[in-house]
Amino acid sequence: MALGQQSISPPRTSTFGATHAGHNVRQHNLVSLLRILHLDGPTSRARLTQLTGLNRSTIGGLVSELRELGLAVENGREVTPGPGRPSPIVEPRPEGAIALAVELTVDCLATAVIGFGGQILAERRLVRPRRSVAPEEAIEEVARQIGAMRRSWEGAPLAGVGVAVAGLTNRLTGTVDFGPNLGWRDVPLSELLSEALSDVGVPEQVGIHLANEADLGALAEARRGAGRDVDDLVYVSGEVGIGVGVMAGGQPLLGAAGYAAEAGHMLVNPDGEQCCCGAYGCWETEAGERALLRRAGIEPSLVGGEAIAAVLARAADGDPVATAAIEATGRWLGLGFGNLVNLFNPRLVVLGGLYHRLFEPLQPFICAAFSERALRVSADMVELVVSELGDEALLIGAAELALTRLFEDPVGVVRCTVTA
Amino acid sequence: MALGQQSISPPRTSTFGATHAGHNVRQHNLVSLLRILHLDGPTSRARLTQLTGLNRSTIGGLVSELRELGLAVENGREVTPGPGRPSPIVEPRPEGAIALAVELTVDCLATAVIGFGGQILAERRLVRPRRSVAPEEAIEEVARQIGAMRRSWEGAPLAGVGVAVAGLTNRLTGTVDFGPNLGWRDVPLSELLSEALSDVGVPEQVGIHLANEADLGALAEARRGAGRDVDDLVYVSGEVGIGVGVMAGGQPLLGAAGYAAEAGHMLVNPDGEQCCCGAYGCWETEAGERALLRRAGIEPSLVGGEAIAAVLARAADGDPVATAAIEATGRWLGLGFGNLVNLFNPRLVVLGGLYHRLFEPLQPFICAAFSERALRVSADMVELVVSELGDEALLIGAAELALTRLFEDPVGVVRCTVTA
Repeated sequence: MALGQQSISPPRTSTFGATHAGHNVRQHNLVSLLRILHLDGPTSRARLTQLTGLNRSTIGGLVSELRELGLAVENGREVTPGPGRPSPIVEPRPEGAIALAVELTVDCLATAVIGFGGQILAERRLVRPRRSVAPEEAIEEVARQIGAMRRSWEGAPLAGVGVAVAGLTNRLTGTVDFGPNLGWRDVPLSELLSEALSDVGVPEQVGIHLANEADLGALAEARRGAGRDVDDLVYVSGEVGIGVGVMAGGQPLLGAAGYAAEAGHMLVNPDGEQCCCGAYGCWETEAGERALLRRAGIEPSLVGGEAIAAVLARAADGDPVATAAIEATGRWLGLGFGNLVNLFNPRLVVLGGLYHRLFEPLQPFICAAFSERALRVSADMVELVVSELGDEALLIGAAELALTRLFEDPVGVVRCTVTA
Repeated sequence: MALGQQSISPPRTSTFGATHAGHNVRQHNLVSLLRILHLDGPTSRARLTQLTGLNRSTIGGLVSELRELGLAVENGREVTPGPGRPSPIVEPRPEGAIALAVELTVDCLATAVIGFGGQILAERRLVRPRRSVAPEEAIEEVARQIGAMRRSWEGAPLAGVGVAVAGLTNRLTGTVDFGPNLGWRDVPLSELLSEALSDVGVPEQVGIHLANEADLGALAEARRGAGRDVDDLVYVSGEVGIGVGVMAGGQPLLGAAGYAAEAGHMLVNPDGEQCCCGAYGCWETEAGERALLRRAGIEPSLVGGEAIAAVLARAADGDPVATAAIEATGRWLGLGFGNLVNLFNPRLVVLGGLYHRLFEPLQPFICAAFSERALRVSADMVELVVSELGDEALLIGAAELALTRLFEDPVGVVRCTVTA
C-alpha cells in the first residue's frame, strides 16, 4: 500500500508470530511517540505520558531510543504550574529521517527535502508555461533539482521519495496511467525516477511512492493544514481540471489501484461539453478553469492565474459576460460540492489551487447551489474553507507519503539508510 | 464508532499502557483467531498456525481459551496428506456470542438471531404493503419478533443489536435523521428500541448500533457475499430510491456522522424531476424504481416487485413504451455506475434489491452508458455482479455490525453478558 498508513483491512492474519512479541509492543509504542512528535512538534515528556497512557519510565526508555536513533533531541524544559519538576521537552530532529518530495503538475516542477516533523529543509520550484512535457524532460529536471539540494539530504536516513502527479497514478505498479494535461499515458514513472535519482546519489533501494496530486493535497491539509484533527475531509483543487482528494475516517480514500476520488469526472450535465476524458458534461467541464474562461470569452492564449485575474478584473468593471461567467461557474461548483457532501459526509471541504483565489467572488453562487443539492443533515455539519498550505500542499503531502515507512519500521529506516 | 472495526485514524495515543502489555498481545492474537473462525468457519489447528504465523503451542493455548469462553469447539480432525498427525478442526460455536439483527425498510420489518460465525439461528420477517409506518408501530413489531425468538438467544452472551434502516442514520447519536420513504424524521431510534427490547428481556446495557441499510448491505456482501476478499466494493440497491454503500480499503465508508455514500442523491440531470430530498435530477429520480414505472406508464397503485414484473412482461410482449423505459432507466443506471467507479475505484459493483432482477434486461443499456462515462483504467478493473446474499444481506450486515464489540473485547462480551 503506497499511500497512508498500514493496511486497514480487518487483520485476518497476525504478524506477531514473526518476531518476539515484546519487541512489537515496544515498536508500537515507539511509533505512537514518533507520530506525536511528527505531527505536534516539540512535546514535553509529561505530555507524552498523558497522550500515550504509558508510564514515565516507559516514556523515558522510548525517548532514549529515539535519541539514539537520531530522531529526537531534548532541549528545554516545560515549566508546568503546580508542584513537580519541570518536564523535559522532546523535539523531533528533522535530519533524523528525510523525505524527498516531488511535484509534477501542469504549471510546475518542484521538489523539496522535508524532515521528520515536517520541516522543509530545502526546496526548488520551476514554474513553467502550461503545456505538456515529455516524461524524460520532467524527470531530468527533478533529478537536477534533487541533485542541487544534495547537501540537505546526503548522509541522512532517507525514508522514501513521494511524488504528486497531475494524473491517474497506479499505486500498485508505480505507473502514471493517464495524465491528460501533462500529455502522459502509461509512463512507468517510479522506475524511470529511481534510475534518474540514482545518478544524483539517491540509493536505488529508497522507495518511490506515487499518488495523484489532489490525494496528496488532501493528506497534507488533513495532517498539517486546514483539516488538522478532522478525520473526514474533501480537498478540491482547481487546476486545468478539478482535482479531488478524500480523507475518510482519517485515511486516504484510494480505491483498488489508487484511482479513487476522480470527482472532476463525475457527470453533472448530460448536455455539457466534451471533457479530456472523452465523456460529456463532467464536473470539470462545467466548473473548471476552462469553463470559466470559455464563458467569460477570454482569449485562449491566457491561462491560469493570469486569465483568472482578467475575468475578475472585467467583472469588477461591470462586464456582464464576465459576471455571468462567474455566476454560472460558481453555480456548477456548488452543485458539485453538494454531490461530494452527499457522497462523503465530510466535516470540511478545503478549496485549493485556483479556487483559493476564486472563492470569494464565487461564494454566493456556490452557496446557493450547494444548499439546493446537499442533504440538510450533511450540509449542516460541513464547513467550506480555503487551503491553509496553498502552493506547498502537494510537496508536504508527498513528504507525508514518503515518510510512511518511518512509521512502519523506524529502526529499519534509520539503520538501513545510514549504512547505504 | 458504530460501524465496522476499530477507529482507523493513525493512532495518536496508545492504549497499551492501560493494561499489562503481554495481555494485549494475547488479546490481539485471540481476536485474530476469532476473525478467522468467524469469516472462514471451521479451520484446522494446522491452518490456524499457517494463517497467523503463531506457533503450535500458542495456537493450542488460544484455542483452549476460546473453548473456555464458549466461542469454539473442536470436533473432527483434518486428515492432511503426508506425514504428521491429523490436525484437530476448530469450529466457531454460534451460541458463544449472539447478535440480534433488525431490518427496518419500506417493504419489510425483519429480525434475526445470528451467532458468532454468521449462522442464522432464527429469523422473523414481516413483508408489508409499502407505506410509511409510525416509529412506535415498527418498534413494537421488532420487539414482538425478538420476543418470539427468545428461546434462540436467552442466556447467550449478546454482543449487540444491529439495525439496518432505510434512511439517513446518525451513528454518533443513534438517531434516524431522515427516512423519507419510512416517513421518519429525527427519530431517536436507539433509545426507543432499547426501551422496547428491555421489555422482552434484552438487557439495557446491550449496545444498539444503527446504520443505513445499504451501508450494511455493502458490509454483508464484503464479509460473506459477492465481495469476500475484496477490499473495495460498491453496493447499489434499488428500492423505492437507490441505496448505496461503499467499502473502501476493507472498511465501511461512513463519513463524519454516518451519512456518507448517499449516491442516490447525486446530481446527474439538472433537467430532471424533483426528488424526495427536495433537489432536482438526483440519480434515483432517473434510475430508481419510480423512474422506470413513470416512463413505462405503470399505474401508481402497483409498486415494487409486482410493478417491475409488469414492466418486464410488457416489454417481452413488444410494448415500445415499456421497452423505451427499460432502455432509458438502464442508461441512467449505467451513467451513475460510471460516476461511482470514477469516485471509488472499486473491484466490484454489487447490485442488490430490485436491481437483482432488473440486471439482465437492463444490462446492455447499463454497459453502454457505463463505458461512455467511466475512466478506462478504473473501468478495466471493475466487475458488475448481482448480490449473493439477496434478501438476507441487510440482516447479515446488521449482525456483523452488532458483533463488532466481540472483536474489540471478546472476554468482556462473554463474561459481562453471561452474568447479566
